[in-house]
Amino acid sequence: MSLTVFATLRAMNEIPKTERTTLKRLPKRGSFDREVINAVLDEGFICHVGFIADDKPVVIPTGYARVGDNLIIHGSRASRMLCALGREIDLCVTVTLIDGLVLARSAFHHSMNYRSVVVFGRASAIETRAEKLAALRALSEHMIPGRWDYVRAPNERELQQTTVLTVALNEASAKIRTGQPVDDDDDYDLPIWAGILPLRICTDSPVADPLLRTEVEIPVHVHSYGKR
Amino acid sequence: MSLTVFATLRAMNEIPKTERTTLKRLPKRGSFDREVINAVLDEGFICHVGFIADDKPVVIPTGYARVGDNLIIHGSRASRMLCALGREIDLCVTVTLIDGLVLARSAFHHSMNYRSVVVFGRASAIETRAEKLAALRALSEHMIPGRWDYVRAPNERELQQTTVLTVALNEASAKIRTGQPVDDDDDYDLPIWAGILPLRICTDSPVADPLLRTEVEIPVHVHSYGKR
Repeated sequence: MSLTVFATLRAMNEIPKTERTTLKRLPKRGSFDREVINAVLDEGFICHVGFIADDKPVVIPTGYARVGDNLIIHGSRASRMLCALGREIDLCVTVTLIDGLVLARSAFHHSMNYRSVVVFGRASAIETRAEKLAALRALSEHMIPGRWDYVRAPNERELQQTTVLTVALNEASAKIRTGQPVDDDDDYDLPIWAGILPLRICTDSPVADPLLRTEVEIPVHVHSYGKR
Repeated sequence: MSLTVFATLRAMNEIPKTERTTLKRLPKRGSFDREVINAVLDEGFICHVGFIADDKPVVIPTGYARVGDNLIIHGSRASRMLCALGREIDLCVTVTLIDGLVLARSAFHHSMNYRSVVVFGRASAIETRAEKLAALRALSEHMIPGRWDYVRAPNERELQQTTVLTVALNEASAKIRTGQPVDDDDDYDLPIWAGILPLRICTDSPVADPLLRTEVEIPVHVHSYGKR
Protein backbone atom coordinates (compact mmCIF):
# COMPACT_ATOMS: atom_id res chain seq x y z
CA MET A 1 0.00 0.00 0.00
CA SER A 2 1.30 3.44 -0.84
CA LEU A 3 1.90 5.94 1.95
CA THR A 4 -0.67 8.25 0.38
CA VAL A 5 -3.40 5.62 0.62
CA PHE A 6 -2.31 4.84 4.17
CA ALA A 7 -2.50 8.52 5.16
CA THR A 8 -5.97 8.80 3.63
CA LEU A 9 -7.20 5.76 5.53
CA ARG A 10 -5.79 7.14 8.77
CA ALA A 11 -7.57 10.40 8.13
CA MET A 12 -10.80 8.44 7.60
CA ASN A 13 -10.02 6.60 10.82
CA GLU A 14 -9.89 3.34 8.94
CA ILE A 15 -7.46 0.48 9.47
CA PRO A 16 -5.91 -0.48 6.11
CA LYS A 17 -7.38 -3.62 4.55
CA THR A 18 -5.14 -6.58 3.89
CA GLU A 19 -5.72 -9.76 1.92
CA ARG A 20 -6.76 -11.68 5.03
CA THR A 21 -8.96 -9.01 6.62
CA THR A 22 -10.91 -8.43 3.39
CA LEU A 23 -14.25 -10.22 3.48
CA LYS A 24 -14.84 -12.29 0.36
CA ARG A 25 -18.44 -13.15 1.19
CA LEU A 26 -21.04 -10.61 2.36
CA PRO A 27 -18.54 -7.69 2.30
CA LYS A 28 -21.31 -5.29 3.38
CA ARG A 29 -21.03 -6.86 6.85
CA GLY A 30 -17.38 -5.85 7.13
CA SER A 31 -15.85 -2.69 8.55
CA PHE A 32 -12.36 -1.30 8.94
CA ASP A 33 -13.53 1.77 10.84
CA ARG A 34 -11.55 2.16 14.05
CA GLU A 35 -14.58 3.45 15.92
CA VAL A 36 -16.62 0.39 14.96
CA ILE A 37 -13.77 -1.95 15.86
CA ASN A 38 -13.09 -0.16 19.15
CA ALA A 39 -16.77 -0.22 20.14
CA VAL A 40 -16.85 -4.02 19.80
CA LEU A 41 -13.56 -4.45 21.65
CA ASP A 42 -14.71 -2.15 24.45
CA GLU A 43 -18.00 -3.99 24.97
CA GLY A 44 -16.57 -7.52 25.06
CA PHE A 45 -14.31 -8.83 27.77
CA ILE A 46 -13.35 -12.32 26.54
CA CYS A 47 -11.26 -12.91 23.45
CA HIS A 48 -10.19 -16.14 21.78
CA VAL A 49 -6.49 -16.17 20.98
CA GLY A 50 -5.30 -18.39 18.14
CA PHE A 51 -1.67 -19.35 17.65
CA ILE A 52 0.37 -22.19 16.21
CA ALA A 53 2.03 -24.69 18.53
CA ASP A 54 3.92 -27.69 17.11
CA ASP A 55 2.58 -26.79 13.66
CA LYS A 56 -1.05 -27.02 14.81
CA PRO A 57 -3.63 -24.36 15.64
CA VAL A 58 -4.60 -23.72 19.26
CA VAL A 59 -7.44 -21.45 20.44
CA ILE A 60 -7.59 -20.33 24.07
CA PRO A 61 -10.06 -17.93 25.74
CA THR A 62 -8.76 -15.12 27.93
CA GLY A 63 -9.62 -11.65 29.18
CA TYR A 64 -8.31 -8.53 27.45
CA ALA A 65 -8.50 -4.77 27.36
CA ARG A 66 -7.99 -2.15 24.68
CA VAL A 67 -5.60 0.70 25.39
CA GLY A 68 -5.57 3.17 22.51
CA ASP A 69 -4.61 1.27 19.36
CA ASN A 70 -3.39 -1.78 21.29
CA LEU A 71 -4.94 -4.87 22.73
CA ILE A 72 -3.59 -6.07 26.08
CA ILE A 73 -3.68 -9.63 27.41
CA HIS A 74 -2.04 -11.06 30.48
CA GLY A 75 -1.49 -14.24 32.41
CA SER A 76 0.87 -16.21 34.57
CA ARG A 77 4.52 -16.14 33.58
CA ALA A 78 4.22 -19.96 33.65
CA SER A 79 1.36 -20.07 31.12
CA ARG A 80 2.18 -22.04 27.99
CA MET A 81 0.19 -19.63 25.87
CA LEU A 82 1.83 -16.51 27.28
CA CYS A 83 5.29 -18.06 26.88
CA ALA A 84 4.58 -18.93 23.26
CA LEU A 85 3.05 -15.56 22.40
CA GLY A 86 5.87 -13.72 24.16
CA ARG A 87 8.21 -15.12 21.50
CA GLU A 88 6.41 -12.80 19.05
CA ILE A 89 4.82 -15.54 16.97
CA ASP A 90 1.84 -14.85 14.70
CA LEU A 91 -1.49 -14.74 16.46
CA CYS A 92 -5.12 -14.02 15.75
CA VAL A 93 -7.36 -12.53 18.43
CA THR A 94 -11.12 -12.73 17.93
CA VAL A 95 -13.82 -11.04 20.01
CA THR A 96 -17.45 -12.01 19.42
CA LEU A 97 -20.60 -10.40 20.82
CA ILE A 98 -23.87 -12.24 20.24
CA ASP A 99 -26.89 -9.93 19.97
CA GLY A 100 -29.65 -12.32 19.04
CA LEU A 101 -31.04 -15.28 17.16
CA VAL A 102 -32.42 -14.42 13.73
CA LEU A 103 -35.47 -16.62 13.18
CA ALA A 104 -36.42 -16.87 9.53
CA ARG A 105 -39.33 -18.56 7.75
CA SER A 106 -36.98 -21.10 6.18
CA ALA A 107 -34.38 -23.16 8.01
CA PHE A 108 -31.81 -21.99 5.46
CA HIS A 109 -32.10 -18.29 6.28
CA HIS A 110 -31.72 -18.61 10.04
CA SER A 111 -28.80 -16.61 11.33
CA MET A 112 -27.46 -14.73 14.32
CA ASN A 113 -27.02 -11.05 14.96
CA TYR A 114 -23.46 -10.54 16.12
CA ARG A 115 -20.55 -8.16 16.17
CA SER A 116 -17.09 -9.65 15.89
CA VAL A 117 -13.57 -8.32 15.51
CA VAL A 118 -10.61 -10.28 14.18
CA VAL A 119 -7.12 -8.97 14.89
CA PHE A 120 -3.98 -10.33 13.24
CA GLY A 121 -0.52 -9.56 14.50
CA ARG A 122 2.19 -10.44 16.97
CA ALA A 123 2.40 -9.75 20.66
CA SER A 124 5.24 -8.09 22.46
CA ALA A 125 5.90 -8.17 26.17
CA ILE A 126 5.48 -5.10 28.34
CA GLU A 127 8.62 -4.94 30.45
CA THR A 128 8.76 -1.72 32.44
CA ARG A 129 7.10 -1.64 35.84
CA ALA A 130 5.08 1.51 35.14
CA GLU A 131 3.74 0.26 31.80
CA LYS A 132 2.93 -3.12 33.30
CA LEU A 133 0.96 -1.55 36.15
CA ALA A 134 -0.90 0.73 33.73
CA ALA A 135 -1.80 -2.26 31.56
CA LEU A 136 -2.98 -4.32 34.56
CA ARG A 137 -5.09 -1.38 35.72
CA ALA A 138 -6.63 -1.17 32.22
CA LEU A 139 -7.39 -4.91 32.27
CA SER A 140 -9.03 -4.61 35.68
CA GLU A 141 -11.01 -1.49 34.79
CA HIS A 142 -12.15 -3.14 31.56
CA MET A 143 -13.42 -6.17 33.47
CA ILE A 144 -15.14 -4.16 36.19
CA PRO A 145 -14.75 -0.38 36.25
CA GLY A 146 -14.00 1.09 39.65
CA ARG A 147 -12.46 -2.03 41.17
CA TRP A 148 -8.73 -1.28 40.76
CA ASP A 149 -8.61 1.56 43.29
CA TYR A 150 -10.77 -0.43 45.73
CA VAL A 151 -8.59 -3.54 46.05
CA ARG A 152 -5.06 -4.30 47.16
CA ALA A 153 -2.63 -3.37 44.38
CA PRO A 154 -0.14 -5.92 43.03
CA ASN A 155 3.09 -6.30 44.98
CA GLU A 156 6.50 -6.85 43.39
CA ARG A 157 6.28 -10.63 43.52
CA GLU A 158 2.87 -10.61 41.84
CA LEU A 159 4.07 -8.22 39.15
CA GLN A 160 7.01 -10.49 38.42
CA GLN A 161 4.75 -13.54 38.18
CA THR A 162 2.54 -11.81 35.61
CA THR A 163 3.28 -11.56 31.92
CA VAL A 164 1.56 -8.72 30.09
CA LEU A 165 1.49 -8.67 26.30
CA THR A 166 0.39 -6.01 23.86
CA VAL A 167 -0.83 -6.46 20.28
CA ALA A 168 -0.99 -3.44 17.95
CA LEU A 169 -4.34 -3.02 16.22
CA ASN A 170 -2.72 -2.57 12.82
CA GLU A 171 -4.49 -5.38 10.99
CA ALA A 172 -8.05 -5.81 12.13
CA SER A 173 -11.60 -5.84 10.87
CA ALA A 174 -15.10 -5.97 12.28
CA LYS A 175 -17.98 -8.04 10.97
CA ILE A 176 -21.49 -7.18 12.00
CA ARG A 177 -24.96 -8.54 11.30
CA THR A 178 -28.01 -6.65 12.51
CA GLY A 179 -31.70 -6.64 11.80
CA GLN A 180 -34.44 -8.98 10.71
CA PRO A 181 -34.14 -12.19 8.69
CA VAL A 182 -33.96 -11.94 4.91
CA ASP A 183 -36.20 -14.66 3.52
CA ASP A 184 -36.93 -15.80 -0.01
CA ASP A 185 -39.72 -13.75 -1.60
CA ASP A 186 -42.09 -16.71 -1.81
CA ASP A 187 -41.68 -17.53 1.88
CA TYR A 188 -43.06 -14.21 3.17
CA ASP A 189 -46.60 -15.54 2.60
CA LEU A 190 -46.07 -18.54 4.88
CA PRO A 191 -47.89 -18.43 8.25
CA ILE A 192 -44.59 -18.73 10.13
CA TRP A 193 -43.50 -16.39 12.91
CA ALA A 194 -40.22 -14.70 12.02
CA GLY A 195 -38.22 -12.18 13.95
CA ILE A 196 -35.35 -11.67 16.34
CA LEU A 197 -34.83 -13.19 19.76
CA PRO A 198 -32.48 -10.68 21.43
CA LEU A 199 -29.72 -12.12 23.60
CA ARG A 200 -27.39 -10.33 25.98
CA ILE A 201 -25.20 -11.00 28.98
CA CYS A 202 -26.89 -10.15 32.26
CA THR A 203 -25.92 -10.34 35.90
CA ASP A 204 -27.53 -12.08 38.85
CA SER A 205 -27.21 -10.80 42.41
CA PRO A 206 -23.63 -10.72 43.72
CA VAL A 207 -22.71 -13.69 45.94
CA ALA A 208 -20.55 -12.62 48.88
CA ASP A 209 -17.55 -14.74 49.80
CA PRO A 210 -18.57 -16.60 53.01
CA LEU A 211 -15.04 -15.89 54.26
CA LEU A 212 -15.65 -12.14 54.53
CA ARG A 213 -14.51 -11.41 58.10
CA THR A 214 -16.08 -8.03 58.60
CA GLU A 215 -19.36 -6.48 57.60
CA VAL A 216 -18.55 -4.99 54.19
CA GLU A 217 -21.23 -3.46 52.03
CA ILE A 218 -21.38 -4.42 48.38
CA PRO A 219 -19.60 -1.51 46.68
CA VAL A 220 -21.28 0.60 44.00
CA HIS A 221 -18.94 -0.66 41.28
CA VAL A 222 -20.31 -4.17 41.86
CA HIS A 223 -23.95 -3.12 42.21
CA SER A 224 -23.84 -0.88 39.16
CA TYR A 225 -21.88 -3.31 36.96
CA GLY A 226 -23.06 -3.22 33.37
CA LYS A 227 -25.24 -0.17 33.92
CA ARG A 228 -22.89 2.07 31.93
CA MET B 1 -1.23 -45.33 24.37
CA SER B 2 -1.79 -49.05 24.80
CA LEU B 3 -5.15 -50.49 23.83
CA THR B 4 -5.67 -51.63 27.43
CA VAL B 5 -5.34 -48.10 28.74
CA PHE B 6 -7.62 -46.86 25.97
CA ALA B 7 -10.27 -49.46 26.85
CA THR B 8 -10.08 -48.50 30.51
CA LEU B 9 -10.54 -44.83 29.70
CA ARG B 10 -13.51 -45.62 27.48
CA ALA B 11 -15.03 -47.62 30.29
CA MET B 12 -14.51 -44.61 32.57
CA ASN B 13 -16.09 -42.47 29.85
CA GLU B 14 -12.91 -40.46 29.56
CA ILE B 15 -11.32 -39.11 26.41
CA PRO B 16 -7.64 -40.12 26.34
CA LYS B 17 -5.23 -37.35 27.30
CA THR B 18 -2.65 -36.21 24.79
CA GLU B 19 0.35 -33.94 25.16
CA ARG B 20 -1.59 -30.89 24.02
CA THR B 21 -4.79 -31.52 25.97
CA THR B 22 -2.91 -32.07 29.24
CA LEU B 23 -3.02 -28.97 31.44
CA LYS B 24 0.42 -27.98 32.70
CA ARG B 25 -0.86 -25.29 35.05
CA LEU B 26 -3.77 -25.72 37.48
CA PRO B 27 -4.44 -29.31 36.34
CA LYS B 28 -7.25 -29.64 38.92
CA ARG B 29 -9.32 -27.40 36.63
CA GLY B 30 -9.06 -29.90 33.76
CA SER B 31 -11.34 -32.76 32.83
CA PHE B 32 -11.36 -35.46 30.19
CA ASP B 33 -14.75 -36.80 31.26
CA ARG B 34 -17.07 -37.07 28.26
CA GLU B 35 -20.07 -36.09 30.35
CA VAL B 36 -18.35 -32.90 31.53
CA ILE B 37 -17.20 -32.06 28.00
CA ASN B 38 -20.62 -32.82 26.50
CA ALA B 39 -22.43 -30.69 29.09
CA VAL B 40 -20.33 -27.65 28.13
CA LEU B 41 -20.77 -28.28 24.41
CA ASP B 42 -24.53 -28.73 24.82
CA GLU B 43 -24.97 -25.49 26.74
CA GLY B 44 -22.95 -23.26 24.40
CA PHE B 45 -23.96 -22.42 20.87
CA ILE B 46 -21.00 -20.41 19.55
CA CYS B 47 -17.57 -21.91 19.01
CA HIS B 48 -14.33 -20.32 17.87
CA VAL B 49 -12.64 -22.33 15.14
CA GLY B 50 -8.88 -21.98 14.73
CA PHE B 51 -7.03 -23.11 11.64
CA ILE B 52 -3.91 -22.20 9.69
CA ALA B 53 -4.18 -20.23 6.45
CA ASP B 54 -1.02 -19.13 4.59
CA ASP B 55 1.05 -20.32 7.57
CA LYS B 56 -0.81 -18.02 9.98
CA PRO B 57 -3.47 -18.69 12.60
CA VAL B 58 -7.07 -17.61 11.96
CA VAL B 59 -9.91 -17.72 14.52
CA ILE B 60 -13.52 -17.42 13.33
CA PRO B 61 -16.73 -17.67 15.40
CA THR B 62 -19.55 -19.89 14.20
CA GLY B 63 -22.50 -21.94 15.44
CA TYR B 64 -22.21 -25.65 16.11
CA ALA B 65 -23.99 -28.68 17.50
CA ARG B 66 -22.89 -31.90 19.12
CA VAL B 67 -24.20 -35.16 17.70
CA GLY B 68 -22.98 -38.10 19.75
CA ASP B 69 -19.18 -38.00 19.79
CA ASN B 70 -18.99 -35.50 16.94
CA LEU B 71 -19.13 -31.75 16.61
CA ILE B 72 -20.97 -30.37 13.57
CA ILE B 73 -20.39 -27.00 11.93
CA HIS B 74 -21.80 -25.65 8.70
CA GLY B 75 -21.75 -22.70 6.37
CA SER B 76 -21.93 -21.54 2.79
CA ARG B 77 -20.14 -23.67 0.22
CA ALA B 78 -18.45 -20.39 -0.77
CA SER B 79 -17.07 -19.72 2.73
CA ARG B 80 -13.30 -19.49 2.86
CA MET B 81 -13.23 -21.19 6.25
CA LEU B 82 -15.47 -24.07 5.22
CA CYS B 83 -13.44 -24.59 2.03
CA ALA B 84 -10.20 -24.66 3.99
CA LEU B 85 -11.52 -26.96 6.72
CA GLY B 86 -13.10 -29.26 4.12
CA ARG B 87 -9.57 -30.08 2.96
CA GLU B 88 -9.14 -31.89 6.30
CA ILE B 89 -6.52 -29.54 7.72
CA ASP B 90 -5.78 -29.39 11.45
CA LEU B 91 -8.20 -27.34 13.48
CA CYS B 92 -8.96 -26.39 17.05
CA VAL B 93 -12.51 -25.70 18.17
CA THR B 94 -13.02 -23.88 21.47
CA VAL B 95 -16.29 -23.30 23.31
CA THR B 96 -16.33 -20.95 26.29
CA LEU B 97 -19.13 -20.32 28.79
CA ILE B 98 -18.65 -17.41 31.19
CA ASP B 99 -20.35 -17.93 34.54
CA GLY B 100 -19.18 -14.93 36.52
CA LEU B 101 -16.58 -12.45 37.61
CA VAL B 102 -14.51 -13.56 40.58
CA LEU B 103 -13.83 -10.47 42.69
CA ALA B 104 -10.93 -10.95 45.06
CA ARG B 105 -9.42 -8.73 47.77
CA SER B 106 -6.25 -8.27 45.72
CA ALA B 107 -6.07 -7.25 42.06
CA PHE B 108 -3.82 -10.25 41.45
CA HIS B 109 -6.36 -12.88 42.48
CA HIS B 110 -9.24 -11.62 40.35
CA SER B 111 -10.49 -14.26 37.97
CA MET B 112 -13.51 -15.51 36.09
CA ASN B 113 -15.68 -18.51 36.59
CA TYR B 114 -15.92 -20.29 33.27
CA ARG B 115 -16.33 -23.63 31.57
CA SER B 116 -14.42 -24.17 28.34
CA VAL B 117 -13.80 -27.06 26.00
CA VAL B 118 -10.94 -27.30 23.53
CA VAL B 119 -11.20 -29.83 20.70
CA PHE B 120 -8.31 -30.74 18.40
CA GLY B 121 -8.80 -32.64 15.18
CA ARG B 122 -9.71 -32.43 11.54
CA ALA B 123 -13.06 -31.95 9.90
CA SER B 124 -14.56 -34.10 7.22
CA ALA B 125 -17.45 -33.18 4.96
CA ILE B 126 -20.85 -34.82 5.28
CA GLU B 127 -21.82 -35.80 1.77
CA THR B 128 -24.99 -37.87 1.74
CA ARG B 129 -28.32 -36.06 1.62
CA ALA B 130 -29.80 -37.89 4.60
CA GLU B 131 -26.78 -37.29 6.85
CA LYS B 132 -26.62 -33.65 5.79
CA LEU B 133 -30.29 -33.09 6.62
CA ALA B 134 -29.88 -34.81 9.98
CA ALA B 135 -26.88 -32.62 10.79
CA LEU B 136 -28.70 -29.43 9.78
CA ARG B 137 -31.65 -30.45 11.94
CA ALA B 138 -29.27 -30.98 14.86
CA LEU B 139 -27.72 -27.53 14.30
CA SER B 140 -31.15 -25.91 14.21
CA GLU B 141 -32.44 -27.80 17.24
CA HIS B 142 -29.28 -26.92 19.14
CA MET B 143 -29.75 -23.22 18.38
CA ILE B 144 -33.45 -23.19 19.21
CA PRO B 145 -35.22 -26.44 20.06
CA GLY B 146 -38.55 -26.96 18.33
CA ARG B 147 -37.90 -24.66 15.38
CA TRP B 148 -36.90 -27.19 12.69
CA ASP B 149 -40.33 -28.78 12.34
CA TYR B 150 -42.00 -25.34 12.41
CA VAL B 151 -40.18 -23.73 9.47
CA ARG B 152 -39.77 -24.47 5.78
CA ALA B 153 -37.25 -27.28 5.31
CA PRO B 154 -34.21 -26.80 3.04
CA ASN B 155 -34.77 -27.45 -0.66
CA GLU B 156 -32.24 -29.15 -2.93
CA ARG B 157 -30.58 -25.90 -4.01
CA GLU B 158 -30.13 -24.80 -0.40
CA LEU B 159 -28.73 -28.20 0.57
CA GLN B 160 -26.21 -27.97 -2.26
CA GLN B 161 -25.17 -24.47 -1.22
CA THR B 162 -24.46 -25.63 2.32
CA THR B 163 -21.31 -27.35 3.47
CA VAL B 164 -21.62 -29.42 6.63
CA LEU B 165 -18.51 -30.62 8.43
CA THR B 166 -18.06 -33.04 11.29
CA VAL B 167 -15.19 -33.22 13.79
CA ALA B 168 -14.75 -36.33 15.92
CA LEU B 169 -14.44 -35.61 19.66
CA ASN B 170 -11.36 -37.84 19.98
CA GLU B 171 -8.97 -35.26 21.40
CA ALA B 172 -10.68 -32.83 23.72
CA SER B 173 -10.60 -31.52 27.25
CA ALA B 174 -12.66 -29.27 29.48
CA LYS B 175 -11.34 -26.61 31.82
CA ILE B 176 -13.57 -25.28 34.56
CA ARG B 177 -13.27 -22.73 37.32
CA THR B 178 -16.02 -22.42 39.91
CA GLY B 179 -16.47 -20.88 43.31
CA GLN B 180 -15.18 -17.98 45.35
CA PRO B 181 -11.85 -16.14 45.02
CA VAL B 182 -8.78 -17.62 46.66
CA ASP B 183 -6.92 -14.75 48.31
CA ASP B 184 -3.62 -14.58 50.16
CA ASP B 185 -4.04 -15.41 53.85
CA ASP B 186 -3.08 -11.91 54.98
CA ASP B 187 -5.66 -10.29 52.72
CA TYR B 188 -8.69 -11.93 54.33
CA ASP B 189 -8.56 -9.33 57.13
CA LEU B 190 -8.89 -6.41 54.69
CA PRO B 191 -12.24 -4.56 54.72
CA ILE B 192 -12.76 -5.31 51.01
CA TRP B 193 -15.91 -6.87 49.59
CA ALA B 194 -15.07 -10.11 47.78
CA GLY B 195 -17.34 -12.54 46.02
CA ILE B 196 -18.80 -13.58 42.72
CA LEU B 197 -20.79 -11.50 40.26
CA PRO B 198 -22.73 -14.17 38.34
CA LEU B 199 -23.11 -13.64 34.58
CA ARG B 200 -25.32 -15.47 32.13
CA ILE B 201 -26.90 -15.04 28.71
CA CYS B 202 -30.50 -13.89 28.91
CA THR B 203 -33.18 -13.05 26.39
CA ASP B 204 -35.23 -9.92 25.84
CA SER B 205 -38.73 -10.00 24.36
CA PRO B 206 -38.89 -11.37 20.80
CA VAL B 207 -39.05 -8.68 18.10
CA ALA B 208 -41.42 -9.68 15.29
CA ASP B 209 -40.36 -9.08 11.70
CA PRO B 210 -42.41 -6.07 10.51
CA LEU B 211 -42.83 -7.96 7.22
CA LEU B 212 -45.02 -10.66 8.81
CA ARG B 213 -48.04 -10.67 6.47
CA THR B 214 -50.52 -12.53 8.60
CA GLU B 215 -51.31 -12.56 12.28
CA VAL B 216 -48.97 -15.21 13.62
CA GLU B 217 -48.64 -15.87 17.32
CA ILE B 218 -45.18 -16.13 18.80
CA PRO B 219 -44.68 -19.91 19.00
CA VAL B 220 -43.93 -21.67 22.27
CA HIS B 221 -40.40 -22.63 21.17
CA VAL B 222 -39.57 -18.91 20.96
CA HIS B 223 -41.36 -17.91 24.15
CA SER B 224 -39.87 -20.76 26.14
CA TYR B 225 -36.33 -20.39 24.75
CA GLY B 226 -33.71 -21.01 27.39
CA LYS B 227 -36.21 -22.30 29.91
CA ARG B 228 -35.00 -25.87 29.59
